[in-house]
Amino acid sequence: MNVVKVGVLGFGTVGAGVVSCLLANKDVMARRTGVGIELAGIADLDTESDRGVKLPPGILTHDAAGLIAKVDVVVELIGGSGVAKDLILMALEAGKPVVTANKALLAEYGEELFAAAEKSQADIYYEASVAGGIPVIKALREGLAGNRIEKIVGILNGTCNYILTKMEEEDADFSTVLKEAGRLGYAEANPSLDIDGVDTAHKLAIMASLAYGEWFGMLPVSVEGIRDIDLRDLRFAAELGYRVKLMGIASNDGGDVSLRVHPTLVPKHSILADVSDVFNGVVISGDYVGEVFFHGKGAGREPTASAVVADIVDVALNLESGSHRRVPAFRVGRQFAGVAPLNRLRCRYYIRLQVEDKPGVVAAVSSILGEHFISISSILQREGQSSYNVSLLIVTHEALEANLSKALAEMGALECVQEDIRLFRIEDI
Amino acid sequence: MNVVKVGVLGFGTVGAGVVSCLLANKDVMARRTGVGIELAGIADLDTESDRGVKLPPGILTHDAAGLIAKVDVVVELIGGSGVAKDLILMALEAGKPVVTANKALLAEYGEELFAAAEKSQADIYYEASVAGGIPVIKALREGLAGNRIEKIVGILNGTCNYILTKMEEEDADFSTVLKEAGRLGYAEANPSLDIDGVDTAHKLAIMASLAYGEWFGMLPVSVEGIRDIDLRDLRFAAELGYRVKLMGIASNDGGDVSLRVHPTLVPKHSILADVSDVFNGVVISGDYVGEVFFHGKGAGREPTASAVVADIVDVALNLESGSHRRVPAFRVGRQFAGVAPLNRLRCRYYIRLQVEDKPGVVAAVSSILGEHFISISSILQREGQSSYNVSLLIVTHEALEANLSKALAEMGALECVQEDIRLFRIEDI
Repeated sequence: MNVVKVGVLGFGTVGAGVVSCLLANKDVMARRTGVGIELAGIADLDTESDRGVKLPPGILTHDAAGLIAKVDVVVELIGGSGVAKDLILMALEAGKPVVTANKALLAEYGEELFAAAEKSQADIYYEASVAGGIPVIKALREGLAGNRIEKIVGILNGTCNYILTKMEEEDADFSTVLKEAGRLGYAEANPSLDIDGVDTAHKLAIMASLAYGEWFGMLPVSVEGIRDIDLRDLRFAAELGYRVKLMGIASNDGGDVSLRVHPTLVPKHSILADVSDVFNGVVISGDYVGEVFFHGKGAGREPTASAVVADIVDVALNLESGSHRRVPAFRVGRQFAGVAPLNRLRCRYYIRLQVEDKPGVVAAVSSILGEHFISISSILQREGQSSYNVSLLIVTHEALEANLSKALAEMGALECVQEDIRLFRIEDI
Repeated sequence: MNVVKVGVLGFGTVGAGVVSCLLANKDVMARRTGVGIELAGIADLDTESDRGVKLPPGILTHDAAGLIAKVDVVVELIGGSGVAKDLILMALEAGKPVVTANKALLAEYGEELFAAAEKSQADIYYEASVAGGIPVIKALREGLAGNRIEKIVGILNGTCNYILTKMEEEDADFSTVLKEAGRLGYAEANPSLDIDGVDTAHKLAIMASLAYGEWFGMLPVSVEGIRDIDLRDLRFAAELGYRVKLMGIASNDGGDVSLRVHPTLVPKHSILADVSDVFNGVVISGDYVGEVFFHGKGAGREPTASAVVADIVDVALNLESGSHRRVPAFRVGRQFAGVAPLNRLRCRYYIRLQVEDKPGVVAAVSSILGEHFISISSILQREGQSSYNVSLLIVTHEALEANLSKALAEMGALECVQEDIRLFRIEDI
């Protein structure tokens, strides 16, 4: 049996998971693939701390470059876009295939990395960059390759989903739950990448690129996070039969592609409404397959390791069969005209206004909506609130975002409107 | 751009879907893969009927052998195990890669076909054989390749799932709903393959083979269908918080593998309980990935075409990169000791007895259970039923099937027990 030597760069949480998996399931993989997959070395600045994995002697090193030189596959699990990027480029320049879980690096420097890979005819695999252990990159790249992708809707960030789930379940506000998430290790000390939607946008950009044939990066993605989510809106949404989820959405909008990340209302009976806690869920809609839904653990040591090791297996099969670049890391083949701006979006909306409870308020608000061709699907103002500050809820029929923005500006200028108006898009998938 | 010539054998429902997809999405596939995928011919006995697909001239033929000879990939969509098998063997002997959706053929003659493929170093791909458009074969074979598979639980037959969903929703009995399903085209004129669980067993055997490294065929699978499902049990299950689904289950049972198809109670909050109508759902549980859930359309012209075309794309990439047999159709690498007999199963059970309503009945029944080490989790006998024939429901804690069988036999012999005892296994995934 031929042996493929694997070098792991970065021995943090995911690195330890990958090493554990490579050691524990070596025999299964060999039987499945006919190739021996051998852990040849692990490079990290810290070669002392115990990561809870029993290692063969002499496997840890400070010398990443030396490790790259002696292995067949380089697995980058350092994270960030500094040394990780340099080492990936070093590996690619040496013609070594690279496996990475680094979504931020890919989303921001994908084109540069893919160009380097093409130049030396090496592979980059990145299943673990999106949705943890769920094989959704492979599904988009291969399993659904015969489809025009109409839409991708994903709950892609476990931290945000945990926070929104707990806010709803425990009727607790954002900052309380964020603190709890931090204590439990579900949120980082600086949670901005997660709660401001950036991590979701990275993952969405990667999936959309595979679906629509252009490496998007972050620029064309409209991003809104969950930092300002008000518990009142979760309560009202629940009453109306919805849940709030942070979603990344890529869709074919009449030949253009729309890319957006924002908190979204989904009907409680929707398959995405049941994606709770730190789980991830993705619906991919294709012209032949219809809607396919994937659900699983989107982060964590073991699930991420599963995805990284699947990529290592793919690389090992490529090396064994001499088929490098069989599925290029990314092949440009643009399948859309342009990027649709957010104001071109058409969907249903949830609007909450805080208004004075006095005659003419509903008339004023609804006439502004009417003037902008926005039709009201349901409207709710509850008795028994303070007459100075009453919640007025409106759910619209499908409307154009550009019109809605104008209407919101006009409504915001009404004297009877007390606070910033809250707006959520509704996703009826 | 290199061109791969595709020959389609069988121009029925799925054949027409595949041809439609190859023609409609040729440009997308070419951009994604860098390979031109060209429909070179379609062989069928009927070259006259309109299948609703506009064909290039001269593409239809009666001459399957001639078509096989002139193409690079052979796509078998005839079904059955007669001419389909002969033509697949003819293609393999000529060293041509084969794509098939034929689960019955694979489940029954897989070993023979794989041996022929190995002899001539040709590939067989069969994504469409299980769960329609959901790329679950690729997930098991590649996307989760680093995992030891602990369990596969699947709702794999759309006809059965449609019938059970409608029985529950419409409070209608099996034969009424079966007739309705026939009228709507969801059940065949002879529905036995579906409703007796055989089709589910075919699909389970294929997935389990990939997971556990031995081509199982049908022999080791315990199979029970839904023909005898009594509406009363769906009602009682609903009251207790369960739904009834026909499931195929493969699991690692202490080093042995357990393979079974039977109607199963799932808690309503379970992710599999929401798989309704003709949809399919599969949970794969691996030691690193945890539980991954896949959901989508499990049958039909377009979803099945999506899976067939994904295989064609894989074959085209293999041909382009010269990597045939990169992922062999099936690699023997047994990862279990033996097949666990059903009486070794441990799970929770739902038992319904029809009993006389008289003193001592519950005592007699529960003492038999106790003697066989079966602990009762809940017991329910409702007031106001006929005193000659009362439903007595028992849900057990986890128990051994062998003990349960003995207890059932003893309970069945009690004078107070009026009808055959109904038993359902409960799946708490």
